[in-house]
Amino acid sequence: MASPITPPRGMRDFLPAEKARREHALGVIRRSFAAHGFDEIETPVAEDVARLHSGLGGDNEKLAFSVLKRGLGGDDLRAAIESGDTLALCDLGLRFDLTVPLARFYATHRAELPPVFRSIQIAPVWRAERPQKGRYRQFVQCDIDIIGEGSQLAEVELITATAAALEALGLAGCTIRINDRRILNGLLEYCGFAESRWPQVLISIDKLDKIGAEGVVAELSEGGADSAAVLGGILAGLEPHLAEGGVELTVEAISGILPEGMDTDAIADLESLAHALDTLPEGVALRFDPTLVRGMGYYTGTIFEIAHPGSGSSVGGGGRYDGMIGRFLGTDVPACGFSIGFERVVDLIEVPEDAATDTVVLVHDPSVPLDRLMAIKSELIATGRRVRLDRRAKNLKAVLDRAAAAGYRSFAFVGPETADAAALEFKPLA
Amino acid sequence: MASPITPPRGMRDFLPAEKARREHALGVIRRSFAAHGFDEIETPVAEDVARLHSGLGGDNEKLAFSVLKRGLGGDDLRAAIESGDTLALCDLGLRFDLTVPLARFYATHRAELPPVFRSIQIAPVWRAERPQKGRYRQFVQCDIDIIGEGSQLAEVELITATAAALEALGLAGCTIRINDRRILNGLLEYCGFAESRWPQVLISIDKLDKIGAEGVVAELSEGGADSAAVLGGILAGLEPHLAEGGVELTVEAISGILPEGMDTDAIADLESLAHALDTLPEGVALRFDPTLVRGMGYYTGTIFEIAHPGSGSSVGGGGRYDGMIGRFLGTDVPACGFSIGFERVVDLIEVPEDAATDTVVLVHDPSVPLDRLMAIKSELIATGRRVRLDRRAKNLKAVLDRAAAAGYRSFAFVGPETADAAALEFKPLA
Repeated sequence: MASPITPPRGMRDFLPAEKARREHALGVIRRSFAAHGFDEIETPVAEDVARLHSGLGGDNEKLAFSVLKRGLGGDDLRAAIESGDTLALCDLGLRFDLTVPLARFYATHRAELPPVFRSIQIAPVWRAERPQKGRYRQFVQCDIDIIGEGSQLAEVELITATAAALEALGLAGCTIRINDRRILNGLLEYCGFAESRWPQVLISIDKLDKIGAEGVVAELSEGGADSAAVLGGILAGLEPHLAEGGVELTVEAISGILPEGMDTDAIADLESLAHALDTLPEGVALRFDPTLVRGMGYYTGTIFEIAHPGSGSSVGGGGRYDGMIGRFLGTDVPACGFSIGFERVVDLIEVPEDAATDTVVLVHDPSVPLDRLMAIKSELIATGRRVRLDRRAKNLKAVLDRAAAAGYRSFAFVGPETADAAALEFKPLA
Repeated sequence: MASPITPPRGMRDFLPAEKARREHALGVIRRSFAAHGFDEIETPVAEDVARLHSGLGGDNEKLAFSVLKRGLGGDDLRAAIESGDTLALCDLGLRFDLTVPLARFYATHRAELPPVFRSIQIAPVWRAERPQKGRYRQFVQCDIDIIGEGSQLAEVELITATAAALEALGLAGCTIRINDRRILNGLLEYCGFAESRWPQVLISIDKLDKIGAEGVVAELSEGGADSAAVLGGILAGLEPHLAEGGVELTVEAISGILPEGMDTDAIADLESLAHALDTLPEGVALRFDPTLVRGMGYYTGTIFEIAHPGSGSSVGGGGRYDGMIGRFLGTDVPACGFSIGFERVVDLIEVPEDAATDTVVLVHDPSVPLDRLMAIKSELIATGRRVRLDRRAKNLKAVLDRAAAAGYRSFAFVGPETADAAALEFKPLA
């Protein structure tokens, strides 16, 4: 007996039932995005290793899988030992997100794309994370992005399309939390933090749900107790709202929870965004959360994140990243994106049975001539049915139970005397 | 201006039109296979590097991309220099086909799968081939396999399902050439080649279409002129048939082109296969070609290959590989598979326009309030339309031409006075 054989660590196989469930959900998302005027594209799974490690991927760069150059010799290895840089042995890397490849794609094909380009990317990404529950080393992301639209129309279309996809998936009870990097910056300025400390302060605020307002103040007091205290007061005042995912996204509510005297255009922008999103479908709540940070360093404006009561962490997120495309293209182009974390979403939804396709199992006797068996099968397929053959076995119950578990709905026997499909007697499967 | 940016060498981006074309074709193939009772599965893109390089992949193993281990140090590199084996630096490799991963998948999950398992795999594979026209380093294969079925039912179901998929794609004029490794062996035995020379002889026969019967004889004469001459005579006699892709797959035709006195059960098997495939749909021709070799060493019985006049090389192929699963599982299990070479097929088909979905472009004025614009868009989407927004520009013709090229069929203006979707006047796009 061979030793147990498994897929690579942190990666998964999908058996037929789970694969069907995933394809169903991906189809729903894809159709939803397409109806909203987005166009699907695809890039290779690998990108130039130097481009992947250009600093845009933040901490994810450290988790990238890298592909060994072909035809390496001892000299290459010796050079890598001297430089201490094993990445020099690699020319490609597997993408760790879909945003860096999109920026590269846009830089490559800009001349062939419309001035405002709305992309769909539904594809796997890879990160060498420490495997744990709900974290995988290969997982699917569903991203929509709008490149070339500097106005809020981008945010509004992205949030509307994402809300529609969540609704189409039957994922009731989602909350989309919204903030703006400029509001965060305004808040830090109001509290009096030196700009050099902002990244550190944002990291602390990002842990608010774990360490609470007191914890944030404790972490930040060393560098300036006054600023930390002001921030602590604001956060403490926000806590009851945050327990509900933030405040309602209305003009009154937004200004009601921000300290007076905060000076930023972002508040007016958020108010107009709230107004434009007024017609969103029911079932997806919008909330303003001035403590929402989002990890990636490339965000420049609006940021958003999807919460669902069934998941401990966010099931999606995104934001505006106006500076990033310019890094590849040499010309600044505004951009904004929203990503659904497919692996978390797919565990939360119920997949309806496919009522449109009739599924039948033909339990056949070994004595049936193959050409007749295939003629009967083809006849049934031609009428739109999905047909599986199963050889008649001593344990008939096991055969039928397996067929029922695989989603087949009825069965019929094919014996040596069965002339054609019209002679079949179908019985329901349990 | 930044330097030109491209995807990695030999890999491709897909822009919206091409991506839509590919997804359409994949959907047709997937639905065809599913109707025939096959179930889709998925494995990770990477497998254990030692498993990928276990000898089952033939020459493709040399073309595999390997993934560098994380956290390597100088000692690892020094050990690799000493052993001369850079693969020791890698723990994973990208799959170069879908057959090795399927064998691994089956070994992992056998207990959860039915005794006869019919799988669909539609997924990319990677090979570091020298890029050239029609050869890519990332490309999609569409495989169906039947594991656990030792009888010809497997071949018959695979060929029938593949023929149905080709027909559904509208790929008229395909020929499926069929042979059996045992017939090839019987032929070589008949000619008197020593068994040790068989692999070499098969390599020569595989080049028949390039070098002709005379070329094959010339290549093989050195090791035994008599055997080469006998083979040459047979091949010369076959040449008129091969020009038509082989002989018809009927009992008479099969025995008519093989030398009398060839002793193999495979002839009787092929005759019964011909009989069972009698009910295949029109439009896909079956031909027996006793010179068909197929490169992979793991084939043990029937082999098949799809030819199409629009493509210089085969657009698919497969065969029986009864010994392979046992290499992973420790127990022999019969297996047979058929693979459609998607990249070649997708270039040959015509994709019909999606008549079911109405597609409209809303050319909007910047002065339209965002909430009203979004309400109108949502109203149209709710009626089943696909809706794209385009800002009104000075060059209106360019906007409309672009929308038409992207497949949109009508447009309407949205101005500040447009109250709702009912007020829109749609005009056809060219």
